Amino acid sequence: MSDFSKLAINQFTTLHRWSLTQAIEGYARNGVHAMGIVRDKLQEVGVREARRCLDAHDMTVTCYCIGGLLTDSDPDRFRVNLNETRRAIDEAAEIGAGCLVFVAGGLPEGSRDLPAARARCLEGLAEILPHAREAGVSLALEPLHPMICAFRSCLSTLAQANDWIDALGAGPELGIVVDVYHVWWDPDMERGIERSAGRILSFHVCDWLMDTTDLRLDRGMMGDGVIDIRRIRRLVEAAGYNGYREVEIFSERNWWRRDPDEVVAIAKARYLSDVI
Amino acid sequence: MSDFSKLAINQFTTLHRWSLTQAIEGYARNGVHAMGIVRDKLQEVGVREARRCLDAHDMTVTCYCIGGLLTDSDPDRFRVNLNETRRAIDEAAEIGAGCLVFVAGGLPEGSRDLPAARARCLEGLAEILPHAREAGVSLALEPLHPMICAFRSCLSTLAQANDWIDALGAGPELGIVVDVYHVWWDPDMERGIERSAGRILSFHVCDWLMDTTDLRLDRGMMGDGVIDIRRIRRLVEAAGYNGYREVEIFSERNWWRRDPDEVVAIAKARYLSDVI
Repeated sequence: MSDFSKLAINQFTTLHRWSLTQAIEGYARNGVHAMGIVRDKLQEVGVREARRCLDAHDMTVTCYCIGGLLTDSDPDRFRVNLNETRRAIDEAAEIGAGCLVFVAGGLPEGSRDLPAARARCLEGLAEILPHAREAGVSLALEPLHPMICAFRSCLSTLAQANDWIDALGAGPELGIVVDVYHVWWDPDMERGIERSAGRILSFHVCDWLMDTTDLRLDRGMMGDGVIDIRRIRRLVEAAGYNGYREVEIFSERNWWRRDPDEVVAIAKARYLSDVI
Repeated sequence: MSDFSKLAINQFTTLHRWSLTQAIEGYARNGVHAMGIVRDKLQEVGVREARRCLDAHDMTVTCYCIGGLLTDSDPDRFRVNLNETRRAIDEAAEIGAGCLVFVAGGLPEGSRDLPAARARCLEGLAEILPHAREAGVSLALEPLHPMICAFRSCLSTLAQANDWIDALGAGPELGIVVDVYHVWWDPDMERGIERSAGRILSFHVCDWLMDTTDLRLDRGMMGDGVIDIRRIRRLVEAAGYNGYREVEIFSERNWWRRDPDEVVAIAKARYLSDVI
């Protein structure tokens, strides 16, 4: 039995060669009816056309990528990203996304003050939350791998994401993305997932390649690397998560260069052999 | 006042262009009288010649690099690395090194079982400790950055290193290396350093480059990156550490290509401007 009812594909997986409408059509053509949407790609076609196409292909939007980057100490730049995140929340609402993926941001230019960047992001989150609540959109905090802490995300672990949510005292408008790529190495992962019970809004899969050549854009297809994906899926599900398993692969040297139909077909096969 | 009495240089910093005797002479010529020694480099010249040269230049050996890699499930390969680590302990004793740096090892070939790799390494540590005790050599566990978890070190955080030492119930023959490169991103770093009080055997400095291009061999000179080195030094010293600050830079694209005398001179200048 090949059950793909909980398979989703994040649009980043076919970033270079498919527009949003092509991705919606392509995933649906391959029997995949849930997807994460990339903001730049939505903006190319516009919300109205996207909705029409999503509806026509019975496509569920799991998550919208991304909002955040709220670490700037400079008030103007901070304000710019707050407003961008507000707009992203509105767009997420308009396309009926399950959540908006929130990426914290790295160190502001010229800064070495990581505690300050973290405090600033928490401040920004507090400021943006009422807007998310009103729009009925959940923000999904995604801890990203420590190797991209400097330039992308000062939010690095599940423990930290849970600490932030505790500190904000937030309700269902704030949750967590668990991406195996970002958490698999963490000696505290089990506890981090347990603590995330009731907060997991999205579960992303891909693989860690033994010969990784790039800090951000060299992820592997499930089964090509060393992550015990099935084990992490079970932990996430033991913590009560019952949603989609979403394939998200950034791959400049391999998957982004290939025919997207082939990528989707392989992702489906690997979903069966290495995820469920 | 330029006080270099606590400056040490790890031989990895001048790996390609100086042999061990050249490094001893070169560091001393530049007024640096403490160094970490790389095992391959010691083996090239032999213990006797190394000791003669170290004594002639009044050189203190801070640490010896490395022993460990004890994650293999295969009993033969595990035994090989146990024996290598025993030999490294003996060599560390013979050159009077302050400690032997212990690198855990990554996933065994073909394995995705990270918990098993960790358990195996802990087993290996327990087996090797009596030998370290007898030889009077301390093992310094070095948590390495999560980005090299797969192929180099399943020991990734200070919390984990402290958990391991607690689990082994070890005495002064087991401690920790704090390297700013490996710990700077950790949201739990402050607590990790506090917990390491009385256990810190070595403190290593370099910098994290914003445009890092390699997972292992692209470290920066202090001041060229984004780590608040001075802050981490103060935390380590607040935890009771009063030893050397050791410059350790792996840099295939830059520092390893340059004249080692120039590298040492720049390291000294940056020690004053960015470390103490």
